[in-house]
Amino acid sequence: MENRMSAPLWLTWLDLFGTVVFAITGVLAADGKHLDMFGVIVLAFVTAVGGGTIRDCVMGLTPVFWVTDAHYLVLTLVAALVTFFFARIADIPRRMLMVADAVGLAVFAVVGAQKAISMDVAAPVVVFMGVMTAVVGGMIRDLLVGEIPLVLRREIYATAAMAGALVHMSLYGLTGRFELSALVAILVAFSLRMAAMVTNTSLPTFRRRRPR
Amino acid sequence: MENRMSAPLWLTWLDLFGTVVFAITGVLAADGKHLDMFGVIVLAFVTAVGGGTIRDCVMGLTPVFWVTDAHYLVLTLVAALVTFFFARIADIPRRMLMVADAVGLAVFAVVGAQKAISMDVAAPVVVFMGVMTAVVGGMIRDLLVGEIPLVLRREIYATAAMAGALVHMSLYGLTGRFELSALVAILVAFSLRMAAMVTNTSLPTFRRRRPR
Amino acid sequence: MENRMSAPLWLTWLDLFGTVVFAITGVLAADGKHLDMFGVIVLAFVTAVGGGTIRDCVMGLTPVFWVTDAHYLVLTLVAALVTFFFARIADIPRRMLMVADAVGLAVFAVVGAQKAISMDVAAPVVVFMGVMTAVVGGMIRDLLVGEIPLVLRREIYATAAMAGALVHMSLYGLTGRFELSALVAILVAFSLRMAAMVTNTSLPTFRRRRPR
Repeated sequence: MENRMSAPLWLTWLDLFGTVVFAITGVLAADGKHLDMFGVIVLAFVTAVGGGTIRDCVMGLTPVFWVTDAHYLVLTLVAALVTFFFARIADIPRRMLMVADAVGLAVFAVVGAQKAISMDVAAPVVVFMGVMTAVVGGMIRDLLVGEIPLVLRREIYATAAMAGALVHMSLYGLTGRFELSALVAILVAFSLRMAAMVTNTSLPTFRRRRPR
Repeated sequence: MENRMSAPLWLTWLDLFGTVVFAITGVLAADGKHLDMFGVIVLAFVTAVGGGTIRDCVMGLTPVFWVTDAHYLVLTLVAALVTFFFARIADIPRRMLMVADAVGLAVFAVVGAQKAISMDVAAPVVVFMGVMTAVVGGMIRDLLVGEIPLVLRREIYATAAMAGALVHMSLYGLTGRFELSALVAILVAFSLRMAAMVTNTSLPTFRRRRPR
Repeated sequence: MENRMSAPLWLTWLDLFGTVVFAITGVLAADGKHLDMFGVIVLAFVTAVGGGTIRDCVMGLTPVFWVTDAHYLVLTLVAALVTFFFARIADIPRRMLMVADAVGLAVFAVVGAQKAISMDVAAPVVVFMGVMTAVVGGMIRDLLVGEIPLVLRREIYATAAMAGALVHMSLYGLTGRFELSALVAILVAFSLRMAAMVTNTSLPTFRRRRPR
């Protein structure tokens, strides 16, 4: 939540938490890719703020959030460095990280949707901005390490972000109560993501009928 | 053509047609890449609006066109979903798609050039914006599925877009008649692309002299 | 240096020199990738102006520099074409190119930092903008030809840019003398990069402790 004045404190904290978690997943994506410390920091950065950056650029909200509020930059840097050195000496449990990542996903979807709502754009654009904020960072991260973005083929991931953005937009439109809507939406997106992970559910994949 | 008021109706329709065609090529690029439904929608979206988005961002025309006019988003989504399911049951003739793609290419080049003209930029920038609008979406699509962008090595493709932008800029500058210039330019770009496809003509490729 | 009025002439020349050098490295990256002439021009362009473009977009400095000043576009185009044909008949010494690239790196870092300073952003953002201007173009170039960006794993490269941005910001803040600060900063960044190349020094690479 870039506009810290208007957001409730718990959402600000969750947003910073999401930023840190995404930065950590960026560092860990460097595994086995022979990246140096700088490369790892770049990965952390694009993962943590990539989605929000493109969101702000296409909506004309410039300078983008991390230019006006240097906390995001500094926090990402610290998280990346700590992870860089910590990962050498200790094992970071994958399961814990996946849960934290689901929190980040849910929060970013709501933050992105709310930014779009405050710009007074059409409903499909609001949902789209929520999803973009949540998933684009991870997509660029995967591109940079030479992988087809996981989010394009992973079990319910962007779909959870979409649900979160949709719920927040609807509830906020109906009730006008920001805190309540954001909380419910985050819980919905988080639960959906967790459920998909636990049950290993995926969307159908693309199959093309072969030409004769 | 984002500014629907000033554009002739036929150009608006062609622009929407180009958007749909590009979305379809995005979906089909997912073939064999194990993408899920969401991934396919992302590919459709970046292909259809990627070029125009970067064009608007670098020229400062924000919020970009699909934020202010949600039709593009919805249209792309519908085209992607229809293609996703249709491609499972029927074969989409490659030849037909290539012709439709050539129409999209030609229209996007003119639309991009016109936007730049209305911003009063220098002539090389106008041509560049036409090309960018026409080819960048396809480039990002190819990156996302792990390929070196086809447009970087394919027979006369960007060159056709360049010709279209050049013709439109020149004619419009000379005559001041938008409709006429756009129509001629689209025909030139389309014909050039078709001719290149039929005759399989390419630009020279890069060869480097080996160091001793 | 986009704002040519306020920059000393030597810095403007160095900036154009950096643009040309980066364009050349873009062309040479096409080696062995079966790109056509257009693809090579695209690579030259993204390498030469990619970093500055994203910098201007995220800071809201739009239209970005090469839209308002077409010299960058034309210069890149000429450099790309000359290199394209020259590389067929003559060998371009790799060593000479590496030195020229180090000049470009140093200049772009200072130019980027100065732009951020003129926007009155926080110190970490200034340094970040310097690094981004210097390295992002090369990163996109590598992505487009299907490589994990070299800058993410190469010996001290971005680190030299960071040093340059840091020195310029500090000196300029202390003395208020732009020319002096820029000159010293460029020398520092250039020397650091040269030293790293000659001694083959790298930052530590990422290693993850294996889960049991």
